Amino acid sequence: MSDRRPGSGTPDWVPLRDELRGEEPYGAPQIDVPVRLNTNENPYGPSEVAADDVAASVRAAALGLNRYPDREAWGLRTALAAYLSREIAGVDAAGVWAANGSNEVMQQILQAFGGPGRTALSFAPTYSMYPEYARNTHTRWIAGQRRDDFGIDAHAAVALIEAEQPDVVFLTSPNNPTGTALDPEHTRAVLESAPGIVVVDEAYAEFRRAGTPSALELLAEFPRLIVTRTMSKAFALAGGRLGYLAADPAIVDALRIVRLPYHLSSVTQATAEAALRHTDELLAQVDALRVERDRSADRLRAAGFQVAESDANFILFGTFDDRHAVWQALVDRGVLIRETGPLGWLRVSIGTPAEMDAFHTALQEVTTT
Amino acid sequence: MSDRRPGSGTPDWVPLRDELRGEEPYGAPQIDVPVRLNTNENPYGPSEVAADDVAASVRAAALGLNRYPDREAWGLRTALAAYLSREIAGVDAAGVWAANGSNEVMQQILQAFGGPGRTALSFAPTYSMYPEYARNTHTRWIAGQRRDDFGIDAHAAVALIEAEQPDVVFLTSPNNPTGTALDPEHTRAVLESAPGIVVVDEAYAEFRRAGTPSALELLAEFPRLIVTRTMSKAFALAGGRLGYLAADPAIVDALRIVRLPYHLSSVTQATAEAALRHTDELLAQVDALRVERDRSADRLRAAGFQVAESDANFILFGTFDDRHAVWQALVDRGVLIRETGPLGWLRVSIGTPAEMDAFHTALQEVTTT
Repeated sequence: MSDRRPGSGTPDWVPLRDELRGEEPYGAPQIDVPVRLNTNENPYGPSEVAADDVAASVRAAALGLNRYPDREAWGLRTALAAYLSREIAGVDAAGVWAANGSNEVMQQILQAFGGPGRTALSFAPTYSMYPEYARNTHTRWIAGQRRDDFGIDAHAAVALIEAEQPDVVFLTSPNNPTGTALDPEHTRAVLESAPGIVVVDEAYAEFRRAGTPSALELLAEFPRLIVTRTMSKAFALAGGRLGYLAADPAIVDALRIVRLPYHLSSVTQATAEAALRHTDELLAQVDALRVERDRSADRLRAAGFQVAESDANFILFGTFDDRHAVWQALVDRGVLIRETGPLGWLRVSIGTPAEMDAFHTALQEVTTT
Repeated sequence: MSDRRPGSGTPDWVPLRDELRGEEPYGAPQIDVPVRLNTNENPYGPSEVAADDVAASVRAAALGLNRYPDREAWGLRTALAAYLSREIAGVDAAGVWAANGSNEVMQQILQAFGGPGRTALSFAPTYSMYPEYARNTHTRWIAGQRRDDFGIDAHAAVALIEAEQPDVVFLTSPNNPTGTALDPEHTRAVLESAPGIVVVDEAYAEFRRAGTPSALELLAEFPRLIVTRTMSKAFALAGGRLGYLAADPAIVDALRIVRLPYHLSSVTQATAEAALRHTDELLAQVDALRVERDRSADRLRAAGFQVAESDANFILFGTFDDRHAVWQALVDRGVLIRETGPLGWLRVSIGTPAEMDAFHTALQEVTTT
């Protein structure tokens, strides 16, 4: 019942827009199996202490729920700015914006800077929601191609940008579903050639390997740069829905024009602020996940698979003549991964060591019979 | 700092869409005064018992926040359907949809059924966010006029609908900012003539006077009808941001195509479900507010003001040659009301008896000097 997907079944009498007819609601299949490694969730939940703090914060907010929330979420934005200040100086609340997940952040960006008559561009394979944001905001969508190693060909990227003059460019680093971090020189080349907004989506930034830079370092130099982040992954807060960005305060102010008033509930603000008070504890699991990622990559390579270099909390591996059959056989063994990315490849999120052992064992069974 | 409103000050280098240049972020002035009667909030917060239940529910959800929420919010939609079933038989979870406030509900409706090349229509004076939803979704916006008593002229409404063939019609009952409930025969006339979706926005439904019908009664007869509600007002949950609707399940399924995946956080779902478990307690305050509304309307009439008939938790009154001066003089006396609606009128939300006494006293001072 939770996966009713009518889409193509929309009756004729429903006056749905033509371009939406036959479309399906976005979302990975939700299948109840013991090992869920399909949506890049953090396998480690908040601790009892962090959960207590979330509950206490919500309890404090609860008696005032009859009042609208702080429309500007100023306390939360201040806390997010303080967090980013660990990586880069000069970020303050006026240069930070937050919304209900990166989804809403991206939709607001395209409402302000994309839309009818405007163009957004990215480089495939990349996050499969981008074209949906473009569709929902009536932004023309163009996908360039990444290299075979899933990096960006800077020369081709600049040529495409010069030809298409996109209003918004989405770069993704580390990229989903490939795990590829961008070469900072390539980011710079895109920023120097792009006539409009450049979004660097760093949803998985905290998982990158040592020495891999963040686009935060380029903010002072490029005022049309937006760096997006999320609390879903490193902060283990996918259920809390809190995406955010850092940008020039004038960019943030432009987004405020299209945001729905009071878009962030008091409860969401209280929850995210509580989680940020436990940053060190929550991020401690990130190191464990990076170790497990590298260990899993080694095991996949040792088993003879192709493995994309990953700076994220997932690994793209392959290739398979019939990846759907492999995906289904893993589901049959209680392991749910994601059938996504270029044909022949599969993506596995990094879970606990026990979950990864179950995955590797099942994969071996599936691919050696 | 929480009211930085750049809008018209967007620098030229920010590549904002042309039609957004010079626009201001929507929202009533947030001024810190003792008596806040400007945003139709419920003055009575949740009880300690309800707040405890909210906190306990969030605590239970908190340990699983590393996982994405139920994308379909099935438990919440089931609870909302049960609540609506007090008024009308036959509503189930498949015919209920929820989002982060009515704002997001309305935006989703226009993303699915409005948009470029399509038209939305309402009857002014009415809720001032509607044109913003239309602007944000690139839907052509048409405003017919209400009668002098703020009701709808059914003959003129049908003529306008036949001429404009709107894809979406917004009716509002009780209407904001006038408080006017629709005559059900007028709603029916609109439903029979409208070629597309008809939204009846019933954000203030629970405050209507005895005998005033809800459009819920028309759902079975008109499959293109959507009735929207909110937990912000009657449930005293403005800070929780939970808007919802009842409609044909095929309409709900169409909205699922444009909804952002995981749009409702686990925390929001847990909070709203907890509030719904305290329905009787929270709604008990509604009766007190209706009594206070009628008492305030009588006092305003006795003082010689024009007062619009109200079925909501606010009153539109007037008229003033210089309403801004009256509004400002009230602010100076610590009473914040809303400068909105037709020229010459002001809107006051219904607060506690003490707050209303403060309002009436201040108004007398302001208007008799």
